[in-house]
Amino acid sequence: MIVKMSQLDAETLQTVTAALEAMGGEVRCLRLPFGCFLAALGLADPPVGTIQAMAGVEWAKAAGSKPILASRELNPQGSRVPLGNLEIGGEALALVAGPCSVEDREQIFSTARFVAAYGATALRGGAYKPRTSPYAFQGLGQPGVELLREAGDAAGLPVISEVMDPGDVEAMAPFVDCFQIGARNMSNGPLLKAVGKAGKPVLLKRGPSATLAEFVLAAEYILLEGNAQVILCERGIRTFETATRNTLDLNAIPVLKSMTHLPVVVDPSHGTGRRDAVAPMARAAVAAGADGIVVEVHPDPSRALSDGDQSLHLPEFRRLAEELRPVAEAVGRRLDLPETLPFAPNQVPLIRRALGWGGSR
Amino acid sequence: MIVKMSQLDAETLQTVTAALEAMGGEVRCLRLPFGCFLAALGLADPPVGTIQAMAGVEWAKAAGSKPILASRELNPQGSRVPLGNLEIGGEALALVAGPCSVEDREQIFSTARFVAAYGATALRGGAYKPRTSPYAFQGLGQPGVELLREAGDAAGLPVISEVMDPGDVEAMAPFVDCFQIGARNMSNGPLLKAVGKAGKPVLLKRGPSATLAEFVLAAEYILLEGNAQVILCERGIRTFETATRNTLDLNAIPVLKSMTHLPVVVDPSHGTGRRDAVAPMARAAVAAGADGIVVEVHPDPSRALSDGDQSLHLPEFRRLAEELRPVAEAVGRRLDLPETLPFAPNQVPLIRRALGWGGSR
Amino acid sequence: MIVKMSQLDAETLQTVTAALEAMGGEVRCLRLPFGCFLAALGLADPPVGTIQAMAGVEWAKAAGSKPILASRELNPQGSRVPLGNLEIGGEALALVAGPCSVEDREQIFSTARFVAAYGATALRGGAYKPRTSPYAFQGLGQPGVELLREAGDAAGLPVISEVMDPGDVEAMAPFVDCFQIGARNMSNGPLLKAVGKAGKPVLLKRGPSATLAEFVLAAEYILLEGNAQVILCERGIRTFETATRNTLDLNAIPVLKSMTHLPVVVDPSHGTGRRDAVAPMARAAVAAGADGIVVEVHPDPSRALSDGDQSLHLPEFRRLAEELRPVAEAVGRRLDLPETLPFAPNQVPLIRRALGWGGSR
Amino acid sequence: MIVKMSQLDAETLQTVTAALEAMGGEVRCLRLPFGCFLAALGLADPPVGTIQAMAGVEWAKAAGSKPILASRELNPQGSRVPLGNLEIGGEALALVAGPCSVEDREQIFSTARFVAAYGATALRGGAYKPRTSPYAFQGLGQPGVELLREAGDAAGLPVISEVMDPGDVEAMAPFVDCFQIGARNMSNGPLLKAVGKAGKPVLLKRGPSATLAEFVLAAEYILLEGNAQVILCERGIRTFETATRNTLDLNAIPVLKSMTHLPVVVDPSHGTGRRDAVAPMARAAVAAGADGIVVEVHPDPSRALSDGDQSLHLPEFRRLAEELRPVAEAVGRRLDLPETLPFAPNQVPLIRRALGWGGSR
Repeated sequence: MIVKMSQLDAETLQTVTAALEAMGGEVRCLRLPFGCFLAALGLADPPVGTIQAMAGVEWAKAAGSKPILASRELNPQGSRVPLGNLEIGGEALALVAGPCSVEDREQIFSTARFVAAYGATALRGGAYKPRTSPYAFQGLGQPGVELLREAGDAAGLPVISEVMDPGDVEAMAPFVDCFQIGARNMSNGPLLKAVGKAGKPVLLKRGPSATLAEFVLAAEYILLEGNAQVILCERGIRTFETATRNTLDLNAIPVLKSMTHLPVVVDPSHGTGRRDAVAPMARAAVAAGADGIVVEVHPDPSRALSDGDQSLHLPEFRRLAEELRPVAEAVGRRLDLPETLPFAPNQVPLIRRALGWGGSR
Repeated sequence: MIVKMSQLDAETLQTVTAALEAMGGEVRCLRLPFGCFLAALGLADPPVGTIQAMAGVEWAKAAGSKPILASRELNPQGSRVPLGNLEIGGEALALVAGPCSVEDREQIFSTARFVAAYGATALRGGAYKPRTSPYAFQGLGQPGVELLREAGDAAGLPVISEVMDPGDVEAMAPFVDCFQIGARNMSNGPLLKAVGKAGKPVLLKRGPSATLAEFVLAAEYILLEGNAQVILCERGIRTFETATRNTLDLNAIPVLKSMTHLPVVVDPSHGTGRRDAVAPMARAAVAAGADGIVVEVHPDPSRALSDGDQSLHLPEFRRLAEELRPVAEAVGRRLDLPETLPFAPNQVPLIRRALGWGGSR
Repeated sequence: MIVKMSQLDAETLQTVTAALEAMGGEVRCLRLPFGCFLAALGLADPPVGTIQAMAGVEWAKAAGSKPILASRELNPQGSRVPLGNLEIGGEALALVAGPCSVEDREQIFSTARFVAAYGATALRGGAYKPRTSPYAFQGLGQPGVELLREAGDAAGLPVISEVMDPGDVEAMAPFVDCFQIGARNMSNGPLLKAVGKAGKPVLLKRGPSATLAEFVLAAEYILLEGNAQVILCERGIRTFETATRNTLDLNAIPVLKSMTHLPVVVDPSHGTGRRDAVAPMARAAVAAGADGIVVEVHPDPSRALSDGDQSLHLPEFRRLAEELRPVAEAVGRRLDLPETLPFAPNQVPLIRRALGWGGSR
Repeated sequence: MIVKMSQLDAETLQTVTAALEAMGGEVRCLRLPFGCFLAALGLADPPVGTIQAMAGVEWAKAAGSKPILASRELNPQGSRVPLGNLEIGGEALALVAGPCSVEDREQIFSTARFVAAYGATALRGGAYKPRTSPYAFQGLGQPGVELLREAGDAAGLPVISEVMDPGDVEAMAPFVDCFQIGARNMSNGPLLKAVGKAGKPVLLKRGPSATLAEFVLAAEYILLEGNAQVILCERGIRTFETATRNTLDLNAIPVLKSMTHLPVVVDPSHGTGRRDAVAPMARAAVAAGADGIVVEVHPDPSRALSDGDQSLHLPEFRRLAEELRPVAEAVGRRLDLPETLPFAPNQVPLIRRALGWGGSR
């Protein structure tokens, strides 16, 4: 049962909590931006009416197979999740960019500096990598997380990185501004609970075979830990089509917007797996109402340790940002790009050399 | 084997044709907008080099499991298919609108008049309806085709209607400007050949489980009859997701553009099956580079004999058109809408009554 | 509305028919093995109760989106469809075998003779071939149908061949014992109606993206033409898996058996696309309760004009039949195999030569 | 790089290990039942030839995107995984049965006793439950694991239970004979590594959208920790079909058998989600060559806290076992069932009462 409180004084909360505990439930008090809630878990057939009638209770709902805390009706105007200088879900679009994997200092620093200069609002980079083959590059682990942090600080960008093991949440927390839950872990309950408890923003990716209803329920796991800072990320589903790595499902945008108040961003890099499809699908996502775009960018995609085929070159990233701006405006949104670049795209090779990038690996 | 001719005089054509026939193939001469071709069919292992070396031959290619005539490289700047005053594939977007089914004179005339006034460039309406259940409304048949023609003429719009049986092509041809091949018939060889021979534009819908490679091969069937006026229409694929009727696959737009020179339009009505998703997905399609949009519009969706849930009300159609215009401009395209409306949206009920629509059925 | 009659005299039928026609419906009288029915089509909201109350009426049901005539409850003990000496759906299993395509006289005669000797109960072979590429072998057409007939007669087997165009039904009918509707045409309404009217058995293949509910509705199209001799064939659905050509969905067997009274057979050749998976999946189908197996067999799969990778060699076919027999018995069914073979498997090459097979093509 | 050693003396191993370490790799020595291997990880482009040429090396292979240790060719006769008195993968079939969730002492003890008496070879039961909704029953946790152990001991059956968090492996290990990795965690790298290190048998379930190639790579993660006791479990994939909860993909059996030496079992309960489909699909799995069956059995499915719709009643389980036996024999396998039952099926209610089951919960 979820109970929305209309009176938040300690005494009222205590009274209702005691009543819920008396029914045998585990009770949590959740103070979310759109209200204060008591969640009573583990009650098979709770007497909703009794609680509903108590003083200080706005409403009580029996929990079942549908989301409550993440549902649109709880916050019809939509939630905003702060990340750096931006509120994701607000008028300005988020533009999250960075390499698939943090590979070394030069790679992540040069990428960070470039994408910041070109309009990115956050830096992404994987240190713990979920890979199909155990022989593929598994990421740098915690040192990679720390490198990412340094690079983000140097470029003035908040950082996002994937966590795969609940046991890593504590060590990573001081170094990331936002945890990413990867697609393969969308329904990993222990992990969802762990990042929920950590109290930081979470970028939650849709599982490759998850329905949208299941996706919102995964977010509900996080909210139920008292953490409403969840950003949903559509990144492609698995279908029979082989021309694209996944089938980026933009239908998710309007459907999720009707189901939940959480912001929705789109990752056209994983969603298509084809560099030539990233920009068209990013424009499409913005036109459909996405709150932001997540793209893979690499200083030298041909040498990337993972996902090279779908990573944008740096100049392509700038072009993408410039293409997105008018589309954003056509649908009443905004994309704030730096007016002047610190360097022209044709200076990129020069600057990469100056940054020490370009040697052999 | 497909042979592109560089000399088109009768003698050269005759010489090469004779050489191909001598190999045992059935030979066709195809005069397409982007070149004149000889197709020799039924040759297991043709001596391409021999033909390649003949006078007047630009190139010869062995046919296999890939499209040749529909492939992008044959017409890199893209093909345009004329329909009414518009060339689909040009700068201006096509906006095809109309009811799922032609139901009666009032319904189709009022819809035609409204969508024309609101910016549609063509009128769609089904008379032969592919239905899952034999008990569902199967369409008005040939009388429906003729009603559609009258309504299109009255509104000044070209008309598109689905053909399901090769035996109906001849009777329908004088009444339609463009044949539609429905999704369930995408790989219906006899039907593709029949509309290919008819020599009129064809709107070819992607099958619900067809890969994009298979989709372009279906178009190749039509081109191989000498008819290059094929418009590809993405209308949603079948996946595990149930929140939408189909999964509209906008990835198809950039991928098809790289595979084929044929124009690509998108049908967000069938693609999503949800009225609330039609406009966002139509905007997204335009942003991704679609050459046009096909939408279902009905004067009274709640009373539609088919597809009511996904049909736009007339005022919603006007709003959609107005939303699409700035998105089109943001990606360097154009949507030409009538500057002045003959009536305001709030006059719609009045006008519907004047047109005789609104009685019981 | 479907009306089951309990009195079948001409006068009663005429009275009820007149009542239905007075409501505005098109009325058909369907004499099926499990009852006599009046079908009134095109009635939006029929007064079922009125008809139900008439003399001679057992029941009346409003038609909607569910099958009526094909539903299990109409014939709970299951229907049997006669084909040659066998009743498909009875205790003895059907074993339909033959090449994907009829290629030439030697190929089809030798295959027919061998599979008959090895236990086949019917001969299959395609003359009209639905192919993804217009450049692939399209089949021999009507001459192929006639060759198949001759080969079946020579071997003492009934023959099954695919029809793709409603316009071909009449010409094919005298030459085939059973029409096949291919997977791509499962929802081709005009074709379903045409084979329904032809009054011969129909092997209806499940569409690659058809749900089982849609599959049974496709069969309902045929029954509604008064033809209840429909055999459902599971042949694989399209999923994300690429290790098999299709995903043979054996779940269809118990589910269809609960939904419909029609017999169910399984085609593991198309269903898997892998020769090494044909026998295990055929055994599995029999164990799950299938009424028969349809397999592709070719005297020389490496030279087949279509589907060579999934066609069994002749000795493999015999081994398959022998493997199926004990599985059939384990589940209370029977597979009648010839006790003595006219030749040993190692004589096959010899006999093939004697039959004239083995030359160049 | 994976190196198979032909000489296993300490000196040779040390020499090759040193050579691999000198290349910069992390080196592991894996003693598997089918050979001793050195795995050198993290080498981008290893000099395979150099190692291949060393004394005591049978072969060396560069690792890439394909499995090596799990591949069929490493153990063509197939691996066997001991579990209780049985070797899974041997001639006798495994029959794993039990409730979806361990709910309380009575439920698990009565189920254990019954399934043991009826022929089960192992007891399954979930204590950590992956649930779509955070409001659904999440399992009893570690106390549930311990209850399962007690029940298994009382009934003389080895026990299998799911682990979801790498942090739980250590606590669970003393209480389970086999870890289960659930479908949602098939590609959870940290978890695969943790159970690999634990050195106990692992029942690895196929992910709902995992290709078979990906499935075998997930097993490779476990083998690469030196643990070859992996049992692959097909449990249904996600497709467009809605008549079944998942689409049980029996094609997996022959395909996996050709790809890997690991035993393959099938779970028709999760695979279909329908009680009426469990027995037919279990028979089919055995006929196709599965090494065992995993089924959900509950003393009172209507009151189950999870998966009641697909759980067999106890008498249904006995009937299933009896149906499977002749099918197993038809394909040259064996299912050893107790000759005499300690009680007749109609005594079940009596015995359940005697065991204390049947009160309110």
